[in-house]
Amino acid sequence: MTRATLLTITVPTGEPADGDPGFALADFDAAQVRITDLGITRGDGVFETIAVIDGHPQALGPHLMRLAHSAELLDLPVPAEHVWHEAVLAGIADYRSRNGDGGELFAKLIYTRGVEGAGYPSGWIFVDEGEDFTQQRLGISVVALDRGLRHDVAETSPWLLAGAKSLSYAVNRAAQREAARRGADDVIFISSDGYALEGPTSNVIVLADGVVRTPQTDQGILAGTTQAAVFAFFEARGYATEYRHITAEELEAADALWLVSSVRQAAPITHLDGREYPVDAALTAELNEYLLSRTH
Amino acid sequence: MTRATLLTITVPTGEPADGDPGFALADFDAAQVRITDLGITRGDGVFETIAVIDGHPQALGPHLMRLAHSAELLDLPVPAEHVWHEAVLAGIADYRSRNGDGGELFAKLIYTRGVEGAGYPSGWIFVDEGEDFTQQRLGISVVALDRGLRHDVAETSPWLLAGAKSLSYAVNRAAQREAARRGADDVIFISSDGYALEGPTSNVIVLADGVVRTPQTDQGILAGTTQAAVFAFFEARGYATEYRHITAEELEAADALWLVSSVRQAAPITHLDGREYPVDAALTAELNEYLLSRTH
Repeated sequence: MTRATLLTITVPTGEPADGDPGFALADFDAAQVRITDLGITRGDGVFETIAVIDGHPQALGPHLMRLAHSAELLDLPVPAEHVWHEAVLAGIADYRSRNGDGGELFAKLIYTRGVEGAGYPSGWIFVDEGEDFTQQRLGISVVALDRGLRHDVAETSPWLLAGAKSLSYAVNRAAQREAARRGADDVIFISSDGYALEGPTSNVIVLADGVVRTPQTDQGILAGTTQAAVFAFFEARGYATEYRHITAEELEAADALWLVSSVRQAAPITHLDGREYPVDAALTAELNEYLLSRTH
Repeated sequence: MTRATLLTITVPTGEPADGDPGFALADFDAAQVRITDLGITRGDGVFETIAVIDGHPQALGPHLMRLAHSAELLDLPVPAEHVWHEAVLAGIADYRSRNGDGGELFAKLIYTRGVEGAGYPSGWIFVDEGEDFTQQRLGISVVALDRGLRHDVAETSPWLLAGAKSLSYAVNRAAQREAARRGADDVIFISSDGYALEGPTSNVIVLADGVVRTPQTDQGILAGTTQAAVFAFFEARGYATEYRHITAEELEAADALWLVSSVRQAAPITHLDGREYPVDAALTAELNEYLLSRTH
């Protein structure tokens, strides 16, 4: 029996008519996407994945802002923020009414250019139970892989869509398969000119000399919604934090490393390319407790 | 009223049971794709577009080989060649039985990693009328745009999937929008180290000093099924042909240029970055006549 809740966003952009919420419940088990939707034929759309803890969607505002930013990079119409916001809440409410209140859930937002020739976008949200990341929150091994692009490509060549969370994620998936082939759990991408960028579905946190850093987002990487909360956690504990260009060498020389993302939260890195890094288990546990206790 | 024919490939990999063709007619107007199909959530799949002239799918064998090659680059299961082959023919026959025999059609093949967690891939084929490319076969203007990647990236970093015809095509679409913003019709991608690569949906043909050349496919570009036929056309007319690395400067210094692809066939380039190139209208017309008269 299906537990997931699916909503079709019937008015993904613009304003719904009076009394129309702009979304409607749909059958998760049924096909919902036309084969000529550019989301499937061209990976032409954007998405967000939002963690839902005890019924609270985490960083909903920042996620919706990032959806709008990705849409702008792809020249998609501005998403109807209010509609998507209410749809997330409605999806969560429906899921919990059928499946109970517990557990870690996620809400996935998908916004595409729509059926070819139709001239209007498509949108869906689904809410489901998250994977169990308990083990990954204790430690993961990663490999550094070439992202192929220079660190400044978002500025010089915006059509490469660096920094957009687009549906064209085949390379991210291929990089994760390459990591698995090398016996690792995940990836940190390095720019072709030697800067640490991000993971395929995460941001990198680097602790060195008592300062907590993450790669600056002008390098065509996603502004992390969880990374912002991680900085708040460390700042409250007296650490300095900094956005900066970080070279692959600085990454390697770090005292400690984490990959952070919306649903997995903080995964401490035990190995980077086979080199061992110490994990402060107590600090990481506290960090994850903090991240999982957010109510917004 | 819908004219297009849609088939679901029910056995996209492996062997169908005795008496099962491995595909079935589906409703083109209905949704066919689950929202959790990795083809939509991650652009995780491959495709081919095949021109159909007078009922003949052009270069069907090479297209199916390329589909298998792309699948291999994405670690997808080997597509069931016989099933896809018969499905293309069945789709064309169905379309023609309902819409008459005329016109230029295309068959689009989509092969994805499937619904997340299902563990088997999805496949579809649809057959529809092609766009009218009469005007583009007389002349197009193009701009050269940075592809961001080095020319040797397929060798050094295979996880970047250069040379795979994947569903993650958002960058190709963004490049075409950038061309439109610059008042041009199409794009030739240049590698970050200065080599001419390909168009977002086409191969480049370069005529210089009486020799017809196209960029070598070890640079992470697609082996062109139409480009092969274009070489055959020129060879029959006494031209030497050559696969080679072609620098952006050599591209600019060409005597004549074409973009060639399966459905549009040969489009002569009238302008590259605003610089004018002479079009041999008679030769191009002959070339398109040749391409459009292929029966296999």
